[in-house]
Amino acid sequence: MIKVYFLGTGGGMPSKNRRLPAFLMKREGFSALFDCGEGTQYTFTEYGLSSVSLDLIGITHMHGDHVLGLIGLIESMGMLDRKKPLNIMGPKRLKEFLYASFEMSHFRPKFELRFIDEYKGNGIRVKKFETCHTVTSQGYILEEEEKVNLDIDRLKAIGVNDWNVLRKIKGGEDVTYEGRILHHEDYIIKRSGSKVVYTGDTRPCENTVNASKDAALLIHDSTFLDEPSALTYGHSNVSEAATIAQQSNVNLLALTHISARYPEPEPLIQAAKKIFPRVTLPNDLSFINVE
Amino acid sequence: MIKVYFLGTGGGMPSKNRRLPAFLMKREGFSALFDCGEGTQYTFTEYGLSSVSLDLIGITHMHGDHVLGLIGLIESMGMLDRKKPLNIMGPKRLKEFLYASFEMSHFRPKFELRFIDEYKGNGIRVKKFETCHTVTSQGYILEEEEKVNLDIDRLKAIGVNDWNVLRKIKGGEDVTYEGRILHHEDYIIKRSGSKVVYTGDTRPCENTVNASKDAALLIHDSTFLDEPSALTYGHSNVSEAATIAQQSNVNLLALTHISARYPEPEPLIQAAKKIFPRVTLPNDLSFINVE
Repeated sequence: MIKVYFLGTGGGMPSKNRRLPAFLMKREGFSALFDCGEGTQYTFTEYGLSSVSLDLIGITHMHGDHVLGLIGLIESMGMLDRKKPLNIMGPKRLKEFLYASFEMSHFRPKFELRFIDEYKGNGIRVKKFETCHTVTSQGYILEEEEKVNLDIDRLKAIGVNDWNVLRKIKGGEDVTYEGRILHHEDYIIKRSGSKVVYTGDTRPCENTVNASKDAALLIHDSTFLDEPSALTYGHSNVSEAATIAQQSNVNLLALTHISARYPEPEPLIQAAKKIFPRVTLPNDLSFINVE
Repeated sequence: MIKVYFLGTGGGMPSKNRRLPAFLMKREGFSALFDCGEGTQYTFTEYGLSSVSLDLIGITHMHGDHVLGLIGLIESMGMLDRKKPLNIMGPKRLKEFLYASFEMSHFRPKFELRFIDEYKGNGIRVKKFETCHTVTSQGYILEEEEKVNLDIDRLKAIGVNDWNVLRKIKGGEDVTYEGRILHHEDYIIKRSGSKVVYTGDTRPCENTVNASKDAALLIHDSTFLDEPSALTYGHSNVSEAATIAQQSNVNLLALTHISARYPEPEPLIQAAKKIFPRVTLPNDLSFINVE
């Protein structure tokens, strides 16, 4: 199960209701933060969430509302005496931005910052994909690895309970057992893991459809209800987000990056539902369990 | 009257009780912000204060907890369509830090940023003074200009009510009136304006005593109750802040930059009171009217 915390669901500027973009995703032994708007470290502190244990931070693009909380968050990790390396994914200039900011604010991280292109570990894989914003921008796919379990009922039925044999079958080997060849594929059950996709800021585009294919949860830019200026600013209207959700056959669509001009979520949810029924518009600090 | 809002009274890292340093000072037709820790723009929004109308921002030094909210605050001013120039005082590298951050986060302010060394206007003067921290750091003196009023009772007693004569006397001229010389100094009352001093981070030092002489309000670094490490980190214990207040004969001392290790203010107030009686430890979003 992946637990997705919506730490900040606004965009551009903070409003009374919505903080700037930040999404925490947790799974046993793993936690990652996607985007880090100003004030994200306050949200961690206020709600008793741990930023020191983060394994990965992924930034979608360099606009201030998505990245300006990162310097303070990392500096506070330093004050909390973090030792563990921190994996960071993001646009090319992120590294330069961080080190320039650290240098000017007299800070030196005492833990390693690992700038990576893809993350794999703890049964999780995180990949990026290019989105369609006014500046270079990347979305993220967080996927559980495929789960391989033994088909215990079937193995019991033929009387196999030798641990060594079971181990080989699970590991993908065919085994000769009491004179009989056991093809491993006949005795394992594969279950694909859950997939969560976060677009960051984007116009609707083919890359997002491809990246989101069959996702359990798609968190999509839905800045506006129905504004032609979405095109100018490189954002999506809710109906466009809903169309992407439909095309990529996701299980659930979460609308986010909601402009401060919409204090009431209902009109946005209704507009999306006309196109795609399985839609939610999370408030700050709500969460979704993705099975 | 100067109204001082304590927007953030913590230091280092935000805690559940105290945000990062930020102090708003307002006087009819004028408002200035001193220091701008991460999240300051949230405090403005949350409490219905206007950041767009700020005339001046003064930053004490480049440590992250004092400056990392400034980029977002200025970017939000841009989104709110600010046109008025913004005066900025701060250490040398502040300008470089701001423009590098703007460039990397794809932002161009459409209003002028005026980097100045001293501010004068609206009956207010703001000066800086060097403090004693681990990095280059400056405190601020905000002073009302001296008020010059006519001594109406005395002028009435000698039968002067000619507007032109009164105007000249107030302007500092000696006037011949009905064959008699009126020395302007005999007919005006001068009242010195109020003075507020904010130290930013500092060890106790002579500069601060000199800058704070007879201030109505001194806002002084009081990070620790009684820690030898105050010396290492360039901060003050509350007893040191109280000693400075006594030496400079201020009217009121406000303890600030309180470490997160002190959830209860009372022990800090008591320790200060042993040395200097007129002391307060403001909470976030409290304010003081300085007459």
